[in-house]
Amino acid sequence: MSHPAPLPADATLADAGEFGLIAELTRLFTSDENVLVGPGDDAAVVRVRHGHVVVSTDLMVEGRHFRRDWASAEDVGHRAAAQNLSDVNAMGGVATHLTIGLAAPPDLPAQWALDFARGFAAECAAVGASVVGGDVTRADQVVIAVTVIGRCEQAPVLRSGAHPGDVLALTGRQGWAAGGLAVLGRGFRSPRVLVEAYRRPEPPYAAGKIAAQAGATALIDISDGLMAEARHIAEASEVAIDVDTSAFEVPEPLQAVGAALGADPMAFILGGGDDHALLATFPDSAAVPDGWTVVGHVREGSGVTVDGSEYDGPTGWTHF
Amino acid sequence: MSHPAPLPADATLADAGEFGLIAELTRLFTSDENVLVGPGDDAAVVRVRHGHVVVSTDLMVEGRHFRRDWASAEDVGHRAAAQNLSDVNAMGGVATHLTIGLAAPPDLPAQWALDFARGFAAECAAVGASVVGGDVTRADQVVIAVTVIGRCEQAPVLRSGAHPGDVLALTGRQGWAAGGLAVLGRGFRSPRVLVEAYRRPEPPYAAGKIAAQAGATALIDISDGLMAEARHIAEASEVAIDVDTSAFEVPEPLQAVGAALGADPMAFILGGGDDHALLATFPDSAAVPDGWTVVGHVREGSGVTVDGSEYDGPTGWTHF
Repeated sequence: MSHPAPLPADATLADAGEFGLIAELTRLFTSDENVLVGPGDDAAVVRVRHGHVVVSTDLMVEGRHFRRDWASAEDVGHRAAAQNLSDVNAMGGVATHLTIGLAAPPDLPAQWALDFARGFAAECAAVGASVVGGDVTRADQVVIAVTVIGRCEQAPVLRSGAHPGDVLALTGRQGWAAGGLAVLGRGFRSPRVLVEAYRRPEPPYAAGKIAAQAGATALIDISDGLMAEARHIAEASEVAIDVDTSAFEVPEPLQAVGAALGADPMAFILGGGDDHALLATFPDSAAVPDGWTVVGHVREGSGVTVDGSEYDGPTGWTHF
Repeated sequence: MSHPAPLPADATLADAGEFGLIAELTRLFTSDENVLVGPGDDAAVVRVRHGHVVVSTDLMVEGRHFRRDWASAEDVGHRAAAQNLSDVNAMGGVATHLTIGLAAPPDLPAQWALDFARGFAAECAAVGASVVGGDVTRADQVVIAVTVIGRCEQAPVLRSGAHPGDVLALTGRQGWAAGGLAVLGRGFRSPRVLVEAYRRPEPPYAAGKIAAQAGATALIDISDGLMAEARHIAEASEVAIDVDTSAFEVPEPLQAVGAALGADPMAFILGGGDDHALLATFPDSAAVPDGWTVVGHVREGSGVTVDGSEYDGPTGWTHF
């Protein structure tokens, strides 16, 4: 393969050209012994052990899922990877390989694409996954398409396995990213810990597999909001779920944001996504692994209630 | 899962909503015994035999890779699937599972998305592959992101294996789609056979595996133009390739379009992509399987020539 010279710092995608950009991007992705052919051919070739392979895909659109003035390119890369790695976590699996599609305007700085890819690769490396392929093309706005492949050593844990009598449990920060997003939306940059939580989530990557091995009956990651995901479990499992707000400790920064914005901080916890916390059901409290908090109960019936009542606050995110 | 009522015929994506649209789309995708969990959970779960798994991803952007007035939604679905299935073909593999991401404006008719998905699913079914997951979201223009997973029963055939002394061979229609695109670009709708070749390509799906088993040394599908793909083989293999134009029979409709537009029909054949023909090198003519035509030779050196000379016609497609 020919290796074009490194791009000048102010190069745009149009300057870099498709093949120049691909060459630069490809240098950023590490490989491992299960990647037999990486980027550069018609397809990547990976070695897969016989068994359960999980596959998920997600889109991120500029102006909708991220803003270039609210997060650095590297942050957006971390977020894009985290969102997809989290989907494998939510099956009880471990991510192994990812592909990226990047559609972007020709005047996008090539450096943005490279920094994005650097953040993406770093997030993947944190769980031992490799980027094995991708595509770049021109579009009116930045659209990022990621597909992740992973494997489950045990049976994957679906949304549909919750039973009446199970407990609902949560692990990972929840509401922090929503608090950070609310702050950014008002033009502020603090509390910094919340803004950083939005820019670079820290999903509990090890927790999905541990939950699966501990006998979780249902498992989902919170990307559309806690209430929305609880509803997904309730619908798929044909059960009712009651969320117990007294179980949540409202962290100090969320209390501060709530006070400053005149909002109930519990709304961030119940409505927020983007932290990629995990929500699971377990047969009883004794089965709940360390690091998880019991936040509700599964009953006969349908729908999701909060402290036994209908909830009329924000419940999540809609894509259209 | 709840099943919303079917959408009214004039519903937009905004009317359908994300979950309504996903429910409608999911109905269109068939499954098979290797799909353990299809669309609807955090990730799909597929059964994979131990061995070589190939993965590829591609983006299609409205106005750049397709126009809604030049092809029906169903045609665009066929094309999007064909483009990706062809990448697996070009490794000598067989596609097994695909994911689709659809970013679209909220006023896109929901029927367009459904017809697109119907065409996509039909093309996948033609090779026995299943759609196992996807994502939909809002964007300013339609962007389609597809990832395909497949398997190779033998070692995958890369771009990098051509040797001096090999013959270059082609299978599948070549130049037809480019002819159709040229016709559409001038506002015409005939020759119909070329327009149809553009709208709904017919890649030689069985040919990649056969070529691999026949000992192909390099293999690529023609999506960026014959000359561009020959160059990819030459660069990756560090060889020179000479294309012999006398080997091509120029089909009558391409002659007609050339005459009507004042263009050399050979430019469609050498520069055109979109048919997803396969280009391969074999150790000698005797190894070339039925249905392939020897169209050139591999020599020591670098670069791609036509009839022994530099070629200055259109060579392909650039993404920025």
